[in-house]
Amino acid sequence: MKSNLLNTIFTPTDLRQLDEAQLPQVAQELRDFIIDVVSVKEGHLGASLGVIELTIALHYVFNTPEDLLVWDVGHQAYGHKILTGRRENFHTNRQLNGISGFPKRSESIYDAFGVGHSSTSISAALGMAIASNLKGDIEKQHIAVIGDASIASGIAFEGLNHAGVTDANLLVILNDNAIGIDPSVGALKNYFTAVKDGKNPRRNNIIKSLNFDYSGPIDGHDIFAVIKELKRLQKIKGPKFLHVITTKGKGLQQAEENQVKYHAPGKFDKSTGEIHLKSDENLPPKYQDVFGLTVLDLARKNQKIIGITPAMPSGSSLKFMMDEFPKRAFDVGIAEQHAVTLAAGMATQGMVVFCNIYSTFLQRAYDQVIHDVALQNLPVIFCLDRAGLVGEDGATHHGVFDLAYLRCIPNMIVFSPMNEMELRNILYTAQLGLNHPIAIRYPRGRGVHVDWQKPYKKIEIGKAKCLKEGTRVAVLSNGTLGNNVALALAKMNQPETMAHYDFAFVKPLDEVLLHEIFNEFETIITIEDGVIKGGFGSAIIEFASQNKYYSELITLGIPDEFIEHGTVEELQQYCKIDVKSLETLFSRY
Amino acid sequence: MKSNLLNTIFTPTDLRQLDEAQLPQVAQELRDFIIDVVSVKEGHLGASLGVIELTIALHYVFNTPEDLLVWDVGHQAYGHKILTGRRENFHTNRQLNGISGFPKRSESIYDAFGVGHSSTSISAALGMAIASNLKGDIEKQHIAVIGDASIASGIAFEGLNHAGVTDANLLVILNDNAIGIDPSVGALKNYFTAVKDGKNPRRNNIIKSLNFDYSGPIDGHDIFAVIKELKRLQKIKGPKFLHVITTKGKGLQQAEENQVKYHAPGKFDKSTGEIHLKSDENLPPKYQDVFGLTVLDLARKNQKIIGITPAMPSGSSLKFMMDEFPKRAFDVGIAEQHAVTLAAGMATQGMVVFCNIYSTFLQRAYDQVIHDVALQNLPVIFCLDRAGLVGEDGATHHGVFDLAYLRCIPNMIVFSPMNEMELRNILYTAQLGLNHPIAIRYPRGRGVHVDWQKPYKKIEIGKAKCLKEGTRVAVLSNGTLGNNVALALAKMNQPETMAHYDFAFVKPLDEVLLHEIFNEFETIITIEDGVIKGGFGSAIIEFASQNKYYSELITLGIPDEFIEHGTVEELQQYCKIDVKSLETLFSRY
Repeated sequence: MKSNLLNTIFTPTDLRQLDEAQLPQVAQELRDFIIDVVSVKEGHLGASLGVIELTIALHYVFNTPEDLLVWDVGHQAYGHKILTGRRENFHTNRQLNGISGFPKRSESIYDAFGVGHSSTSISAALGMAIASNLKGDIEKQHIAVIGDASIASGIAFEGLNHAGVTDANLLVILNDNAIGIDPSVGALKNYFTAVKDGKNPRRNNIIKSLNFDYSGPIDGHDIFAVIKELKRLQKIKGPKFLHVITTKGKGLQQAEENQVKYHAPGKFDKSTGEIHLKSDENLPPKYQDVFGLTVLDLARKNQKIIGITPAMPSGSSLKFMMDEFPKRAFDVGIAEQHAVTLAAGMATQGMVVFCNIYSTFLQRAYDQVIHDVALQNLPVIFCLDRAGLVGEDGATHHGVFDLAYLRCIPNMIVFSPMNEMELRNILYTAQLGLNHPIAIRYPRGRGVHVDWQKPYKKIEIGKAKCLKEGTRVAVLSNGTLGNNVALALAKMNQPETMAHYDFAFVKPLDEVLLHEIFNEFETIITIEDGVIKGGFGSAIIEFASQNKYYSELITLGIPDEFIEHGTVEELQQYCKIDVKSLETLFSRY
Repeated sequence: MKSNLLNTIFTPTDLRQLDEAQLPQVAQELRDFIIDVVSVKEGHLGASLGVIELTIALHYVFNTPEDLLVWDVGHQAYGHKILTGRRENFHTNRQLNGISGFPKRSESIYDAFGVGHSSTSISAALGMAIASNLKGDIEKQHIAVIGDASIASGIAFEGLNHAGVTDANLLVILNDNAIGIDPSVGALKNYFTAVKDGKNPRRNNIIKSLNFDYSGPIDGHDIFAVIKELKRLQKIKGPKFLHVITTKGKGLQQAEENQVKYHAPGKFDKSTGEIHLKSDENLPPKYQDVFGLTVLDLARKNQKIIGITPAMPSGSSLKFMMDEFPKRAFDVGIAEQHAVTLAAGMATQGMVVFCNIYSTFLQRAYDQVIHDVALQNLPVIFCLDRAGLVGEDGATHHGVFDLAYLRCIPNMIVFSPMNEMELRNILYTAQLGLNHPIAIRYPRGRGVHVDWQKPYKKIEIGKAKCLKEGTRVAVLSNGTLGNNVALALAKMNQPETMAHYDFAFVKPLDEVLLHEIFNEFETIITIEDGVIKGGFGSAIIEFASQNKYYSELITLGIPDEFIEHGTVEELQQYCKIDVKSLETLFSRY
């Protein structure tokens, strides 16, 4: 039996001591290690398995961390983390106070740039390369590893377009596995596929047209071939582009065969690959499925309904509509900006467009929301999944800014449902026609009602509701945190002092009810899963100030700092918006 | 003498009655008409002169407004406006209550999509084309006219990448004049130039690789050639791409020769083309020049300083640094997202990066500001020119959301200088090193001090200052509106009741001073040139609420609506933040 090599590697310097012939063994051990840990600890599996050989080759050939390596998105960086000093902590991946699921500058000198959102690597690495040039570090290498789904996003193109006219020591490695989280789409993807199939030979090369030294495609699992090519490219100055073909999930049969499911499979049997399915019988549905199934149902009745997702058919559950109405539901790839303006164009022609974008990714299309949708007052229906604290994905992915950045836009309606029925009914209401754009934001994870598919009810825009009467304190909750409030109230001994209102609409506010509330209660508590600065609570404070109400006001929500990773419950506790913290607060009244 | 044809054209239907042979005369008359009006009324000149023939050909061949025509950016749409019912109102261009300088849906049925920010046309027209397909309008044409500077922006690429895999009736017309406001840059621009020069023949075509039916390049001033090609393309289904070569400023010699200056030349002599220069002797400088000259001066002393502009070397005055330090100052083209992440990458390597982006365009890079800069707490120095109300460019260009959308981001410092010295000194302070990103926002136009180049003084971060003592009311101004406050106070008979504070920092707030103010004054008035919802005033209200101060609070700023075009003074008046309105308000105390 061979001795374990991986255990001897604490930094890439150790890796570089090995003989090239030993590297396939390292690859096998690294793959096994990742499978071992992720099978019980959960995490992003497929992407990292696909780049095992590439990861080893990069650290073997280049002088990291002097040479700067930027992993796009970061789903694929587990091997990188394990080889760069985090093997022994890898079991804490994505846990509170554990290592991050993504490369992160504050975690390691080997993480040259923090990632999480896609398609930033070319711009970041180019910035580093230009800085090195200015500092006279002309030997330094700057490497961006980017997938074929990510390279189709606008910012990646902008980076290529700039890099091509510089003499920066930039190496862009295209990790071409034809898939992001869902299969890649778009004309560029078809082009790369044609290149792979030999149908689109050298003479017609997009990358060369952008002035890159192009090489490939090469087999990304042939570690010797990859090393050889990296060594050759290491000597070439200026912008270079290496096209590498890999298989997502490589080395675990089921993961190779079902790449979407094994992107982040949850717990699984490491020998058979079988996923440990949690029974979801009698569990409330995921909010994404409430969206997906409701929009499908509405689309059956309303021919004008269109669905758009930028690269999240599975994650958003728009796939249900895509399966039944492929001509009316679109995956546009990682292209949030395009998704929003496309929706605006469709809306000008009277279509009813549900544009589903994770809250954190709508930040990518902020200008399009303002300039193309809200300014023209087009009734696009934005569905922002993964709003609020998302848990283990951490700081890059929390959807906590949306209330603040949307509330300041004229014409926008902003709504956070408290539960499945409110989500279902607002989707129904929106497609009836609102004459305004609306943003409907809801969290990751499951709702609270098993029996949610009740007859549709139209929601009155801008109307809040009283869930519980009280005498002294009014709790105004926005969104699903209302359920935490209800649970906390239910646990109280003397809850009669506390009233609870569901303020699903952050905009327009229910001013009639607010006047009643401010006239009646001496203390008002607002609660939201968004940033306190500028968010829902801030809107209530503005109302109070404008109307000269001087009740005591307490605003609960996300403090003015970036929140790290952990379970949603742990993070809620940190922000003091979990049930227990609320109970403690409420008990003071 | 030929009879005037232009005067007989009220809609494109009239144009289509003419003989093709008469169209060159229409072109001449249209060109003269634009020159006549713009020479005295001001406006964007060069872009519209460059597409006269293309504009006539499009309306002649296509059945507008049934066929849908989207002008990217809209600088070039004057001819379109004049041919589509707005000839007689064209003299009101960009004036309060006059027609907009950009296509605008609410203004005309011929304006299929509102524009202003660049690179949206492909996505919007594709959305329309897909909608038409779904509605069974398979003959309908959808046309996006986009410049070579705009097509290099990320969203345009995203649009092309999607369109290439659809069967949408989309015609993308590349108006290739090698210039935006400043000359175009980037690898794609070089590629198009090579195509024009015959150096990059058919066999290597980026656009074809993206699955478009490519034709061209053709001479965009040969109206018969353009008509012939449009008629041919009209019969082809699916995504098509026509490459048209034009000259910006065509027909006015000086405008052709100095395309940057004649983009929007101000008033000029219509026969000689000579620009009526306003003497700027003894005028205070433009804020953009305070930025440009100060950064140049600082860059001479601090080798780590880098400047970045996305396509605004002239508008931002970064050109001063670009001229003297071409290796350290970058025009990255219309690529705000890339500009920000590039800056972040440079900052990781210890460079001091001034990233100058107009406030309204930073909306394009919101995610990059949050995810790539603020989350990693990289000390990028954002300089947001054209913040606040910009005047004649109108609703698409006002930089009024920045305070609200930046204030909610952790780690950000947000500063609005009141005058040239504050701008100059904060630029100086920022390059000394702040350990945080900072956004410095300042308006279009001129400052208030002729003698502004005084010795640098370091500004204490988060410190506000008292400009005038008072007894009853404290006015807290942010940014240059402080000058309106000072003027209003100077006009009052009994100004002793009013105190005035310069709160340049929206974040962090000067809480020490705020405690003093709230303890001392019964009324607090905040004033800002940003949206009231979520902005500076909102931050002060949050402070008051958290600290249980119950002073009367009045927040002045931009109301919750999109503000149209007009002079800055007119728009300030509309928002009640002009000197006269302030005087009236103050006199009540």
